[in-house]
Amino acid sequence: MAGIAYVNGAYLRSSNAQVHIEDRGYQFADGIYEVCLVIDGRYWDAEGHLDRMDRSLKELGIRQPMSRASLRTVMAELLTRNRLKDALVYMQVTRGVAPRNHPFPAAGVTPALVMTARRFNLDDNDARAKKGVKIITQPDIRWARVDIKSISLLPNVLAKQAAVEANAVESWLIKDGKVTEGSSSNAWIVDDTGAIITHPKGREILGGITRETAIACARDLQIRVEERPFTLAEAAQAKEVFITAATVLVMPVIAIDGQKVGDGAPGPIAAQLREAYKERARSA
Amino acid sequence: MAGIAYVNGAYLRSSNAQVHIEDRGYQFADGIYEVCLVIDGRYWDAEGHLDRMDRSLKELGIRQPMSRASLRTVMAELLTRNRLKDALVYMQVTRGVAPRNHPFPAAGVTPALVMTARRFNLDDNDARAKKGVKIITQPDIRWARVDIKSISLLPNVLAKQAAVEANAVESWLIKDGKVTEGSSSNAWIVDDTGAIITHPKGREILGGITRETAIACARDLQIRVEERPFTLAEAAQAKEVFITAATVLVMPVIAIDGQKVGDGAPGPIAAQLREAYKERARSA
Repeated sequence: MAGIAYVNGAYLRSSNAQVHIEDRGYQFADGIYEVCLVIDGRYWDAEGHLDRMDRSLKELGIRQPMSRASLRTVMAELLTRNRLKDALVYMQVTRGVAPRNHPFPAAGVTPALVMTARRFNLDDNDARAKKGVKIITQPDIRWARVDIKSISLLPNVLAKQAAVEANAVESWLIKDGKVTEGSSSNAWIVDDTGAIITHPKGREILGGITRETAIACARDLQIRVEERPFTLAEAAQAKEVFITAATVLVMPVIAIDGQKVGDGAPGPIAAQLREAYKERARSA
Repeated sequence: MAGIAYVNGAYLRSSNAQVHIEDRGYQFADGIYEVCLVIDGRYWDAEGHLDRMDRSLKELGIRQPMSRASLRTVMAELLTRNRLKDALVYMQVTRGVAPRNHPFPAAGVTPALVMTARRFNLDDNDARAKKGVKIITQPDIRWARVDIKSISLLPNVLAKQAAVEANAVESWLIKDGKVTEGSSSNAWIVDDTGAIITHPKGREILGGITRETAIACARDLQIRVEERPFTLAEAAQAKEVFITAATVLVMPVIAIDGQKVGDGAPGPIAAQLREAYKERARSA
């Protein structure tokens, strides 16, 4: 994180950026989060992320920590105080601080809000996209409500660590023979006809904000989009494979479990979609 | 929690008991915990809890925060500083503080250790056991590694909240038609023959320490123990139903989803087992 964090009403230096040990986020993973990309001082897809934050809070019965206008003020202030123009902004809301006990605490307990920012380098990200990335596969052992963007991320951590140990950057998660999504990204393939395929929204995946925008971009580009589950066998035969997330935008995948995708180089559709995504996000 | 908490090397007043916002426990639920009962200044089943803590850490690749002897010193000191003789001691270990990123941080990052204590009233607990408690059922939507006692507890929180909203104290979790366990306790029934039945250990339940001791007590009492999954229909027909956990010891259940168990009063086997458990834990 950068030098200054927002923690429950105060802008604090990193060394003082602390929460109480009985914050329910710390003891129960009882909270949600969002990650927003900022380029040239402008938040990309911010309304989408804030809408999803509202939904996650509603699903868990956590009150909103403040109005959207106030959130926007904190988001802007955080960039100013950290002198950041290109950044990833992280925001987390938990059910607040209360004596440890599983059920929700009394109604008077205030939700906790933490926000941090760190520098993002779009050129580096673009350079990675030119090379493409490698992924592996792992069983999808997560809970049944991954549509909620909760901080209950231990299975995601383990899947990501497995990827890193295999010199890859992401793990695709396999459930009942189908690819649901990555540990921190949505999963896509391009079939023989040039159509792009990604798992439909529902309780089995997190409805990615970048995923939504990428679908809109594809439609603008007259690329057919199929929202349906696909198998690893289909991915192995795909013309192209890519992942999407706020942190990677649209990122080509060049190998799965050590097997080359196509000829092992990023493909044209992912590249086209990445450029369209950047244009759309910039002008939104 | 009581007045003084142990937080990463220091004994702190509650108001100062804080951890960094980038503690991986707060952002990723990347940690584990234990709850130990203390009666008359003596820890019950402490070795079992510490053994399980070691196992949880090992499964997640988190280093031990300190030796067992040092942990025992902190456990004792916490009781002394809080002047507690009857207490629930909570200890939590996370993978430590590092810039937010899913994979494990560099090897040099120190695990975080937090320990708290709060007063426990065994007489009140016994009084509850005389009356018995009501439970409901909920789908088991947890991840596939609930044998690890992780702080990734959001599904448990939601199941417990559902119980509280139904004027019950616990939710039994149903998976593939079988009762796995409660949101914070193990699940037991007594059949027509007087045998007690509980789900076997494995990845589908947390191997309860109180559960182990209760099994040993049952065997001492010549009660037959069957470790096998059972259905809700079997529970509805059971002579007795009860739950076990460090926080409830052996607690009779008198209703499931609003349906009386037997005649709606605590049964003799649960009562016998509770007394045997207390004797065994006291003299261990």
